[in-house]
Amino acid sequence: MEMEKLTVCRCITGYRLANAAVNYDTEERDIMKKPFVTKEQLEEIVQQFPTPFHLYDEKGIRENVKELYEAFSWNKGYKEYFAVKATPNPFLIQTLHEYGCGTDCSSMTELMLSEALGIKGHDVMFSSNDTPEEEFRKAAEIGGIINLDDITHIEKVEKAVGSLPKTMSCRYNPGGVFKISNDIMDNPGDAKYGMTTEQIEEAFRIMKAKGVEEFGIHAFLASNTVTNDYYPMLAKVLFELAVSLHEKTGAKIKFINLSGGIGIPYRPEQEKNDVFKIAEGVRKVYEEVLIPAGMDDIALYTELGRYMLGPYGCLVTRAINEKHTHKEYIGVDACAVNLMRPAMYGAYHHITVMGKENQTCDHMYDVTGSLCENNDKFAIDRMLPKVDMGDLLVIHDTGAHGFSMGYNYNGKLRSAEVLLQEDGTAKLIRRAETPKDYFATFDFCDVLKDMKY
Amino acid sequence: MEMEKLTVCRCITGYRLANAAVNYDTEERDIMKKPFVTKEQLEEIVQQFPTPFHLYDEKGIRENVKELYEAFSWNKGYKEYFAVKATPNPFLIQTLHEYGCGTDCSSMTELMLSEALGIKGHDVMFSSNDTPEEEFRKAAEIGGIINLDDITHIEKVEKAVGSLPKTMSCRYNPGGVFKISNDIMDNPGDAKYGMTTEQIEEAFRIMKAKGVEEFGIHAFLASNTVTNDYYPMLAKVLFELAVSLHEKTGAKIKFINLSGGIGIPYRPEQEKNDVFKIAEGVRKVYEEVLIPAGMDDIALYTELGRYMLGPYGCLVTRAINEKHTHKEYIGVDACAVNLMRPAMYGAYHHITVMGKENQTCDHMYDVTGSLCENNDKFAIDRMLPKVDMGDLLVIHDTGAHGFSMGYNYNGKLRSAEVLLQEDGTAKLIRRAETPKDYFATFDFCDVLKDMKY
Repeated sequence: MEMEKLTVCRCITGYRLANAAVNYDTEERDIMKKPFVTKEQLEEIVQQFPTPFHLYDEKGIRENVKELYEAFSWNKGYKEYFAVKATPNPFLIQTLHEYGCGTDCSSMTELMLSEALGIKGHDVMFSSNDTPEEEFRKAAEIGGIINLDDITHIEKVEKAVGSLPKTMSCRYNPGGVFKISNDIMDNPGDAKYGMTTEQIEEAFRIMKAKGVEEFGIHAFLASNTVTNDYYPMLAKVLFELAVSLHEKTGAKIKFINLSGGIGIPYRPEQEKNDVFKIAEGVRKVYEEVLIPAGMDDIALYTELGRYMLGPYGCLVTRAINEKHTHKEYIGVDACAVNLMRPAMYGAYHHITVMGKENQTCDHMYDVTGSLCENNDKFAIDRMLPKVDMGDLLVIHDTGAHGFSMGYNYNGKLRSAEVLLQEDGTAKLIRRAETPKDYFATFDFCDVLKDMKY
Repeated sequence: MEMEKLTVCRCITGYRLANAAVNYDTEERDIMKKPFVTKEQLEEIVQQFPTPFHLYDEKGIRENVKELYEAFSWNKGYKEYFAVKATPNPFLIQTLHEYGCGTDCSSMTELMLSEALGIKGHDVMFSSNDTPEEEFRKAAEIGGIINLDDITHIEKVEKAVGSLPKTMSCRYNPGGVFKISNDIMDNPGDAKYGMTTEQIEEAFRIMKAKGVEEFGIHAFLASNTVTNDYYPMLAKVLFELAVSLHEKTGAKIKFINLSGGIGIPYRPEQEKNDVFKIAEGVRKVYEEVLIPAGMDDIALYTELGRYMLGPYGCLVTRAINEKHTHKEYIGVDACAVNLMRPAMYGAYHHITVMGKENQTCDHMYDVTGSLCENNDKFAIDRMLPKVDMGDLLVIHDTGAHGFSMGYNYNGKLRSAEVLLQEDGTAKLIRRAETPKDYFATFDFCDVLKDMKY
């Protein structure tokens, strides 16, 4: 299967075909994606931190979050809850928190991480599904807002916590197909998340009767959209729902959570979302739907992950093998353990051969990792300049769902995370795993007593 | 995408469509897959070890490896090198080693694990690709047989080790399509592994000139085959290659490594491979090709993983949520973190609702984990008996590429591994991860000093 000719993207219903007919990779490119780090900087950094590692761009991260808050500044209560699952790194979460970002947590360890960083109370959104009781308990304990995925969870929260918190949120799933344009759609009806229209109304009534005072609404109808239309279209659905729920149940709607879904341009020819246009589109719908209904004090929340960090991280790796068999292969010292998106979704990640940015892309390669698993390829039939052994490669846009999706298949160890600080120096923000970490779950017995670390 | 109608299997070229037209899951089944553990046993075990966990069947493992050695007993030097990547558990590897199994290692930690268990020398096969130098060094240090993936690795081994070991192996890739039957084929020409015919001949010449005395040949041309024909067909290719290489280069061929590829029946209606028929088929080809060439002392090796442990492991999980929205969902306390094959390959894993084995499968469910990732479904549109909250579910055939492919996405922790011993008692053979393990790679700094473990 030629993965890049039939690109499969992450989406809420599992897989989606995108750009099916277009093979960008066999054409030479005019359009370039520029790494946020120079070859000179990188050669210094690799003296300190051996490849492979994920590198993050502090400057880019800060500028982007500032811009996001600026774009939504028209909405008084606007808040971004960073989707911790995208990049569960405490240093990066702290940086975002400086600008007012809370955390969108989906599990016990994410709640613990948030708490340890002093991010608590309504700065925490707990958006989970198929949730164990103890996680509801923890979320309530740190004062987070619980966003219920299912109507049956009302009872579960009561059982876990003792009573319902004063503020509660519900996740909505309208079912069917959510069409943004002719090219872009997703299939909420096949997604496991959220409540139906009838259920969310019933949930609001039940919770109101049980003393809940403030309500929120949440929905996630499409993933990684590279269009300025998704949020405004989603906002329309949710704002109209809010008006209807308010009318029917009398519930005070405090916030509407547009969740994630704002994507990034993984491919060089894709255009970046314009967050000002997006926010303006949402404002227009706010004025059309909410204000006439007298609901002019509703706060907007987002739970962006990919948009916050995706482009501001890259995987730095070195070419260590070249192979000429039935195809041409470049083997690098990173593998799917460091970045699983190409293996799992057939996802495209742009690659820059450092120092060869201006050379012609006249060599076709599969760029592979070392797993005994043939889907361990960062690129298939990719046109690149001639790669020489020792070349540093930057694999773009790994700042979200990169490190966090890492596994230890084949006994491979997960890499370090390094921050390129605004002053140009590099700082370790997660150390690489060691064999001792890998074998830690045998420390209860002596089966590995002869291990030579 | 209805994953189970369009089943995608692991194969060497990444993805393969199988049983595309057949939807077994909407029909009631006469054929059952029986768990190796009873409900009564399991209810005792879960008192000791909380769900979810992987459970392994010592009795089944021992019977199966005995049978394998019996089937190949006609070949004097026969040896199974267990593919550590499938299930890197020291207790299980020790059990297999009792029967003479060595280890097939593909990375530094797998070599370390083997060494710590006292499995060294020619009991170790190092079959890797895109290999870093230090791994060649380690493999040589413990006396393992190095199986070269690429001709350029001759120099690499010399550089890493100082000289070539006396025994060396090469991995072969004939290219093109390898067709076993009308239904079953794979695409070695698209696989990153191995050397071409010309390269392997050249590699043998070069290494012979450099003093290598004994040679092996290795190939892996199809994955998870459920047919008795794969090994005999592969054997024919490799035996003929051996004769040709011997004739052309004068190299002494010591062994032929049929590698992995013998699969297991994940679906209840599939028939199990018959290892006696397989071994008999290989013997026939041995007698047809090798003996007439005077090469009657060649040892056969295998590198089975899935076949050795797949059916003798299961994921034990509990139903903790039920959801009735646009579809019917059963949420369990395991997720893709514990078993990624359904999410990554759309793979089928049979599910037994314990205690309801004889009830009619008249409910259609998606069985989901808790990840914020819609592909976190163990089954889609699966017919099961009515599932009640608290029911124990056994997800079959997770003994290989189950735990080992686990990740920590969404901050979820990997589970324990438990052995159901021959005497019916349960023994912990890997403890579950804790939050402390999850956050271990921040122990170099104080960013998480306020963490409440």
